[in-house]
Amino acid sequence: MAPMMRRAGQRRGGIDLGGTKIQAIVVDEDNNVVGQSRCPTPHEGGPQDVADAMANALREAASLAGTETSSLKGVGVGSPGEIDAASGAVSNAKNLPNWSESFPLGPILSQALGTRVAVGNDVDVATWAEYVLGAGRDRNSILGVFWGTGVGGGIILDGKSWDGRGSAGEIGHMVVKRGGAKCPCGNHGCMEAYAGRSAMETEARRRVDHGDKTDLFKLMEKHEKPRLTSGIWQRALEHEDEMATELIDRAVKALGAGIASAVNLLDPEMVILGGGLGVRFGETIGPRIQERMQLNLFDHDDPPDFEIAALGDFGGALGGALLVS
Amino acid sequence: MAPMMRRAGQRRGGIDLGGTKIQAIVVDEDNNVVGQSRCPTPHEGGPQDVADAMANALREAASLAGTETSSLKGVGVGSPGEIDAASGAVSNAKNLPNWSESFPLGPILSQALGTRVAVGNDVDVATWAEYVLGAGRDRNSILGVFWGTGVGGGIILDGKSWDGRGSAGEIGHMVVKRGGAKCPCGNHGCMEAYAGRSAMETEARRRVDHGDKTDLFKLMEKHEKPRLTSGIWQRALEHEDEMATELIDRAVKALGAGIASAVNLLDPEMVILGGGLGVRFGETIGPRIQERMQLNLFDHDDPPDFEIAALGDFGGALGGALLVS
Repeated sequence: MAPMMRRAGQRRGGIDLGGTKIQAIVVDEDNNVVGQSRCPTPHEGGPQDVADAMANALREAASLAGTETSSLKGVGVGSPGEIDAASGAVSNAKNLPNWSESFPLGPILSQALGTRVAVGNDVDVATWAEYVLGAGRDRNSILGVFWGTGVGGGIILDGKSWDGRGSAGEIGHMVVKRGGAKCPCGNHGCMEAYAGRSAMETEARRRVDHGDKTDLFKLMEKHEKPRLTSGIWQRALEHEDEMATELIDRAVKALGAGIASAVNLLDPEMVILGGGLGVRFGETIGPRIQERMQLNLFDHDDPPDFEIAALGDFGGALGGALLVS
Repeated sequence: MAPMMRRAGQRRGGIDLGGTKIQAIVVDEDNNVVGQSRCPTPHEGGPQDVADAMANALREAASLAGTETSSLKGVGVGSPGEIDAASGAVSNAKNLPNWSESFPLGPILSQALGTRVAVGNDVDVATWAEYVLGAGRDRNSILGVFWGTGVGGGIILDGKSWDGRGSAGEIGHMVVKRGGAKCPCGNHGCMEAYAGRSAMETEARRRVDHGDKTDLFKLMEKHEKPRLTSGIWQRALEHEDEMATELIDRAVKALGAGIASAVNLLDPEMVILGGGLGVRFGETIGPRIQERMQLNLFDHDDPPDFEIAALGDFGGALGGALLVS
């Protein structure tokens, strides 16, 4: 077998399916990214449209890596919603269009890409990637906090993913204000009700409807975005937009309180902040979240380390690729 | 060796050191309680006074079991505060009198009782006892919630105690209302700030100082209690005392929200409600806490089982006895 062919055979694909974007990568045997492609997540249609976009993104990444998807050893997907890892089916993906019923994402992608496909929970695989390759490499217990469209949590204890009965890690739905703001999940006072990108956009619209002023939606239109992306929030903050500043402050306080709660319960060695907003705002807003967390720690003298996801935007897709053994 | 002597040699002692009371037991090799004694926890003096009271309680329990403490295989203690399991030293026991410095509780008791003494965290050992002998016998993952002077949490995951870096399980200091009531720990909005017996008493006194009416303190004096014990709260509720009813309602809401947060994060098979108030009010108030928890679960359709601590008042002391191998 020629060296080129052997190397291609050990390449793997990874796809991070987010509420806002789809990130596809191809990695070599040392987990170096050798091709990548990104596209917006369809916000209309249904699961098949999302699967089509995912397959296209991976084909593009493979092409940029000089290979074809059918030559990959396999592809791993980090997906939101409820995952049946055995069958590759996904249901109840709340931030994706019309995706409440079970959809055989793994098998459909496998057929489209001509290689085997493994599906895992987006946040779990991203946390695992940080543990294996990123900020948490030397640690034994990690709390991953993924601040994006929603707020997800990944838990690694004693070097193993903790998933409870299949649904652990819902840090975004820890209560930070009993009886507080309505969350996209339907409950009240969840961390995500204040900090999730989607909930923040809903709140901004509500305030605009009440006559408050903001440039958020003007910026969104100007940059031709279908929603308030992390980039739009960043621009608005740079313009010192009052509403954007207030809503981000509100998110910071909720994140600080919720992360502190989780730390008080689990006492991990490290908190890793990732996700679309977490990665974009890590440098500037991360320290403020850490400060708010510190306020609510039970043991103020011994906080966990607090790091920004080292794998950045590729964390989820790398976690996907790590599913392929 | 005569049978009587052999049996005595396999007996073990257990002591639960609570903020309100000290419970001592002697158990046989099958963990049956063969002698028990209880006394109030000294609320003046210091660690040595507490240790003296503990030694006396265990002597009494041993005497009722027809043995002497020096014949016991060993004694295990469930203690609040920071425990150094290796040395048996305890520090920062916030609900005990003048006990911030490290005090060699294990060695002091060992000398007083003439047998070896192991010291563990009160809530961890009580949760472990429920896992080995009580409500959690058939389960693999358990969240123990000990509602008493404070609110403590014990975590068992995959059949093992999870203690983090030594301080996990501080469920009482999860934030249920950001910026909310001041907690005895100094933070704001903790579950314990609303639900801990000690915080509830502080709040009752504050309301009385503001001119609100209650029979709580009259009942306390009538029954010659130094504080608002769980029994006093029960009587006040039976008398339909308005303030007591309100403060218990407030505690129920905080417990429900905080437990839901922990369940959303950990997704355990079972929640076990114990502690002085938890055991006393389990039948009547437990279902209300469960109802409030349900409101804030992320997955409403698949709640964990919810049980009252099956070992009742002896749970902590049995957990202590289980420390002796």
